[in-house]
Order: sequence, then structure tokens, then C-alpha cells
Amino acid sequence: MNQLIMNLIEQGKFSEVRNEIVKINVVDIAQILEELKVEKMLIVFRLLPKEIAAEVFSYVSSEQRQQIIEVSTDKEIKNIIDELFLDDTIDILEEMPSNIVKKILKNTNQNMREIINQFLNYPENSAGSIMTIEYVDLKKEMTIGEALEHIKRTAVDKETINTCYVIDNNRRLEGIVSLRKLILNDKDIVIKDIMKTNIISIQTTMDQEEIASLFKKYDLLAMPVVDNENRLVGIITIDDIVDIIEQENTEDFQKMAAMQPSDEEYLKTNVFTLAKHRVIWLMVLMISATFTGNIIKKFEDVLQSVVILAAFIPMLMDTGGNAGSQSATLIIRGLALEEIKLKDILKVLWKELQVGIIVGLTLVVVNFIRIYYFEKTDINITITVCSSLFLTVVLAKVIGGGLPILAKKLKLDPAIMASPLITTIVDAVALVAYFSMSSRLLGL
Amino acid sequence: MNQLIMNLIEQGKFSEVRNEIVKINVVDIAQILEELKVEKMLIVFRLLPKEIAAEVFSYVSSEQRQQIIEVSTDKEIKNIIDELFLDDTIDILEEMPSNIVKKILKNTNQNMREIINQFLNYPENSAGSIMTIEYVDLKKEMTIGEALEHIKRTAVDKETINTCYVIDNNRRLEGIVSLRKLILNDKDIVIKDIMKTNIISIQTTMDQEEIASLFKKYDLLAMPVVDNENRLVGIITIDDIVDIIEQENTEDFQKMAAMQPSDEEYLKTNVFTLAKHRVIWLMVLMISATFTGNIIKKFEDVLQSVVILAAFIPMLMDTGGNAGSQSATLIIRGLALEEIKLKDILKVLWKELQVGIIVGLTLVVVNFIRIYYFEKTDINITITVCSSLFLTVVLAKVIGGGLPILAKKLKLDPAIMASPLITTIVDAVALVAYFSMSSRLLGL
Repeated sequence: MNQLIMNLIEQGKFSEVRNEIVKINVVDIAQILEELKVEKMLIVFRLLPKEIAAEVFSYVSSEQRQQIIEVSTDKEIKNIIDELFLDDTIDILEEMPSNIVKKILKNTNQNMREIINQFLNYPENSAGSIMTIEYVDLKKEMTIGEALEHIKRTAVDKETINTCYVIDNNRRLEGIVSLRKLILNDKDIVIKDIMKTNIISIQTTMDQEEIASLFKKYDLLAMPVVDNENRLVGIITIDDIVDIIEQENTEDFQKMAAMQPSDEEYLKTNVFTLAKHRVIWLMVLMISATFTGNIIKKFEDVLQSVVILAAFIPMLMDTGGNAGSQSATLIIRGLALEEIKLKDILKVLWKELQVGIIVGLTLVVVNFIRIYYFEKTDINITITVCSSLFLTVVLAKVIGGGLPILAKKLKLDPAIMASPLITTIVDAVALVAYFSMSSRLLGL
Repeated sequence: MNQLIMNLIEQGKFSEVRNEIVKINVVDIAQILEELKVEKMLIVFRLLPKEIAAEVFSYVSSEQRQQIIEVSTDKEIKNIIDELFLDDTIDILEEMPSNIVKKILKNTNQNMREIINQFLNYPENSAGSIMTIEYVDLKKEMTIGEALEHIKRTAVDKETINTCYVIDNNRRLEGIVSLRKLILNDKDIVIKDIMKTNIISIQTTMDQEEIASLFKKYDLLAMPVVDNENRLVGIITIDDIVDIIEQENTEDFQKMAAMQPSDEEYLKTNVFTLAKHRVIWLMVLMISATFTGNIIKKFEDVLQSVVILAAFIPMLMDTGGNAGSQSATLIIRGLALEEIKLKDILKVLWKELQVGIIVGLTLVVVNFIRIYYFEKTDINITITVCSSLFLTVVLAKVIGGGLPILAKKLKLDPAIMASPLITTIVDAVALVAYFSMSSRLLGL
């Protein structure tokens, strides 16, 4: 289908394009536009009926949005903005250059401009900045019949009508009622009698990560946002939460790989920004790794007498690092999903100690066979290497399991205690163990 | 509120508990039960009204579910199962020991047993295994009035009524209509005229990861599942997708830290299973790291003459590993979110090359100042270390950026090409570069 439309566009059969394109999903239309050159993209965009155009506009890339706004008349812009939900408008404005923002704001009325400005002022990633104001509000004295009439009159502009919010004359949130309940009950029942009053609501300043975990915990499709006097100011819907969950996960992936988190798409980020996000942690870790180097310097004479010892350094360091990052990853993830709590620290340490011993012993056996029987390494060196390996793996497991929880206790982000940092610590421990044991066992 | 109820339970004031507990959310009730000892938990569970009990049952831990089923009468079990949605029943059965499963199945009717068996036979993580059959189906000839009547009669058992599915006499899916559209239009309009016919549907065998990306792509709240003759067999709702997204992310985190993925909770997994999931990759990486060791052995004479060279090995290896895992993480994540496609490989390599050069130069400058000016290292050694560092960082970036895409091209999971594997490769490259350069520059 998409291919058919692409062909029609190529052939310039735009009246046929107009007929066919409305049959497919707006997301697919946006995808088709993404693949077109600017001029064709603009032609096809202008073929779209008004309601569809606005939706497609919210799905194309931000470059294409700029291109569209640049060539649009004031009337066209007004049509798009009128059709968009407020939360999408805010998202779009946030990433536009200021000349485009001006052009858009010029085409909204005074009231809308004030609302937009208020929304742009909420802290980034707070409930205020992601909520929308297009919700259905009801009064508790209404009957279901009246409520349904009210919904019918106003629903066309609402982001969701599946959940309705009951407010008093001061807009204070008194209850929640689902459309399902309205449909299932008799028309003359009063809202007050069927509304739910144990409401889980969000404060405007709450951070999106916390909001996402409330949605997950309570399996909700929408949640009301209230100010500090419990007045309803907006709602947040699950579709935005799905994006936030992915964004928070991306940030965790980045932090765990020792980068400053960023929610820009990789291919759209320029080289200097990418370099900037990476270089600081690399530098910190590079400098700490030189302390590990100093340990080696301290044992220069040991190494001088048995140079072969150096050959086992990469294996010890890598295995320690990997063992530690396995533990750290599991614990960081468990903390993020709230499956592991601070009070579990002893359980975690005990578990990691046991896992470390099992894994350590297994690796030692394999390593012993390999370096003693196959590589015919001296027995004393073999023993040194194997005991250091065991100690390193056990320590790496315990440190990897404990540090993220400690970080959380200190109100730091556990994700920054991930592999790179733990590797650096484990390296140092591994080398000290290795060289002290060597100098003793080899009688140096 | 929760604390108040906990106190009432402690004091044994169960009639007050019964009054208070129904006022809070079922998820919070489940949380209270989780904190109680078995006997008290069972007493409180039995205080709950029938509808609430089933919902709470679907939120408590699987140990508690077993405890509840063990002491429940056949009638109580039947009440719970009747109230549960099929997808929750299946999830619960999948994790119960067989004696409990038998006890539950004994209390369902023949028809339900057949459906349950059919669902348990769908491949794990396929659409069939996560869908539910409690959806609203309509006929296209119905008027909106008739449809609303039909919904009113049947909705009480449905997981969602916000989206309704239009099927023909052979249950073939013909269209979708939202409850919103039914409410907004006049009662005598026929469904056929307002239903959407460009339907995005899922095959029963589709994997959950693919399903989740369809939900994200199209911002949907529910999707229909059809068999290969396009007959509607179930629906999947967004609340299950949120869990799947987190589960897929957890698996990626685990794979990227060189573990076999598992969706068991950390604290509930026993030590041997944890060890088993970790040891295989650790062993593979340990053995590959010994090849790195062999490189050092090959350059034993170089090292013998200038033992101080060994002191820079940890810094070179760690920085290379970190630089590579930064790139790999960004690319793996970009591939998972479909922001990076296979065709972008050259763009990625070019970008990583540039980032590598910028980051590498920055690190070299810092490193030069530190080891030459502060540590008074010999200029030839300084130059060797700095050039190796630069080469290592640039290579690590390019390899880290390229390998995940290559993996995807070879239909492997990009996540397994993450830090540990890349570190091992980068280590080898770094050491060869370092020692060859040393022996040349130092004239050894």
C-alpha cells in the first residue's frame, strides 16, 4: 500500500495520491513524507485533509515540521495548531527555532498563547510539561444522561474520553468515573454515586520517572494532574508514558556506559555534542586507571624478575570487570524496576558472595586446566593466577552488587555506579591481590 | 491510609479492616498483603469482597497466590477465576506448580478448560500467549444504538470496551470502531459507515518484541490478534505492553552485560540459576582474554627491557574498553528503538570516526600533560603511550559503532555485541599497537 502511494507520488498522479493516502494510518503517511524530497513532501502534505494533516504533522521529524511551517500560510498554521492536542503543540514548540515558534504563536489566540507560555515554563520532564488540558470534566450532581450529553457536546476536542474527571466549582478534583461505568449504568443515576473517590493523582512538579512508575504500579491509562490546592490542571495519558519509559531506559543505558544522558536521536546529534557527552567520563576513568598503573609501578621489581606475570593481567582485569558489571547491571535494573529495595542490601551481598564463589570456582578450574596442563605454566605461577582470579571474581561480584545500592542510599543515581566505575575499582583490587600473592608465592 | 490499615490488622480489628480496605486501590491492598505473615494475609484476603479479591489476587506475588489457593475452597477458587481476565489467568497458571494448576483447572468448566489449554500451548512470548479473549465484538449492520445496547449487556466481562471490533459471520475482522465514535454519533447511524477499515492487526505467532514496537509506532491502546485466515481470536491491551517493554529492556541490559537473559526477579532467583546465567559468557571472555595475554608474551623481551611499559596497560585497556562500550551502547539502543537502520552503517562509522578523533585528541592532551610534565616520564615512552591511546580510542569507537550493526546484518542480536566482547577485541588491538610502537620508538 505504502509502496503503491510512493509510486503514484513518483509519477506525479497527485489526485490519485489524495484518494489513496487517506486510507492508510497517519503514522504510515508520516513515514512516506519522511522519505520524500522537500518539494514533493510539501505537495503531498498539502493534499491531506485538515484533520489528518495535523495528526501527520505531529508524527513527522522536526526538520520536516520546520519546512512545513516555513512555507505555510497563517491560515494553514492556525488549522494545524487548532487540531493538535496541547501536549503535542508544546513538544513541537520546544524543539523549534525561535523564528518558527514566533510564526506559530502569531497564529494562536491570546488565551491559547497564555496557556502555551505557562506550559513552556514548567520544569523540563515535570508533570506540568507533559500533561494535556484536553480532558472531560463533570460535576458530581450530574446524572449519567447529562454527563453523556456533556461528553457528546465537548468530546471532539478531548485527548481521551475514556476516563472523566469530577470537579467542584473551584475545579478541585472530587472523583473519577470511567466512560465504561457511564455506559453500563442507568441514565438517571447521579455521578456522585458511581464515581471513584480514592484517586491516585500527580502533582504538577512530579518528575516523569516517578510518574511512569505510578502508571506501571497501578496499570492506569490516564492520571489526573493537580496543583498544590488539589485543583485539576491537566491529565497525562499512557501513550506519552510509553515514550517516557523508553527515554528513561535510554538514559540508564547511557549512564551505565559512562556517558552523560541525552534524549537526542544518535543520527540527529552532531559530532561535537556526541564527543562532549562521552569525553568527561572517559577522562575521569582514564585518570583513575592510572592509579591502577601506579600499583604496577610499585611492583616493578616483581614484574622485572618474572615478566611472564604481565601476560595474565588482561585476563584478570577483563574477567573481574565483566563479573562486576554483570552484578551491577542486575542490581541497577532491579532498583530501577523497584524489585530491589534499599533494605535488601544484605540479601544482595550474601547472594552475590555465593554466586561469586560458584562462578569463581568454575572459572578457576577451567583456567587451571588451560594454563597448567595446556600451556605448561609453572605451578607456582598457575596457583598465583588462579587464586587471584578467584579473589577478583568474588570481590567484583560483591562490589558490583553493593555499590549501586550504596549509591541509592546516598541519593545518587545507581546507574552511574555501573561497569566502568566498578571495573576501575576491581582492577586495582585485582592487581594488588595478584602482585602481593606473586611476591609471596614466588618468594620474590 | 495504608499505615492505618496495617495498624488495624495488627490490633486484630478485622471488621474495621473490612470497612477501610475497600477504600484503597487494589494494588495497595496487594502491597499490604505482601507485608503480612501467611496467617494474617489469608484472614485479610478472605475479608475482601468477591470482585476485589480476584483483582488483588492478580497483583500479589506468586508465592502468596499459591498460599491462597492452597487454603481456598473449590467455591472460592471458582469465584476468583470467574472474575479474572483470561490473560491474567494464563499468566498465573504458567508460574504455578502442577498441583495448584490442577486445583484451579478442576474449578473451571469444560469450555474454559479447553480455552486455557489452547492458550497454554501458544509459544512463549507470542501474541497468542499474551492476548485476552474478553473483547467487544459488533456486526457492521448494527446501528450505534444497537451496538451500545450490546455493549451494555456484555461489557461487564470485557477487559476493555474503549475499542470494539467488527466481525462477519465467520469471525473475520472487518473493522474497528472506538467507543468514542459510538458516543459522538447519532444512534441510528450504522456501524459500517463509521468503522475504520485500515486495521493494524497482529498474527497469533508474532513475537512480543515486534508487537511492542507496533504499539509504540502507532500509539495504540489495544490491537486485535487474528489467525492466518484473518479471524479475530483475541486482543492485546497497552497495560500488558508496558510490562513487555520493561521486560525486553531488562533482557537487553542483561545481554549487554554478558549474561543469558532471564525475566525472573533477582531476589526470587536462586544462587545456582544466577551463577549459570553468568558463567558461560564469563568463561568465553576469559578464554579470549588469554589471547590478549599471548600478545604480551610475544613482546616479553620488549617488556623485559622496559618494565615500566606494563604500568600503562590498565589505562590503555580500560580507556579503550570504555570508549568502545559507549559507542556500542548508543548504537545498540538506536537499533532497538529503530532510530538507526542497517542502511545507516556508513553514516555511523563516519560519525564514530570523527567522534573518536575528537575524544582521542582530548584524552591524549590530558594524558601527555599528566605523564610527561607531572610524572616526568621519558619522552619516548610518553609518545608511545599517547599515540597508542589515540589509536585505541579511535579504533574502539569505530569497532563499537560498527559491530552491533554488523551483528544485526547477520541476523544476530546486536545486544550481544556489547561492551564485554568489544572490550576483548579492543584490548588485543590496543596491546599490539602499544608494543609494536614501543619496540620501534624505543629502538628495542
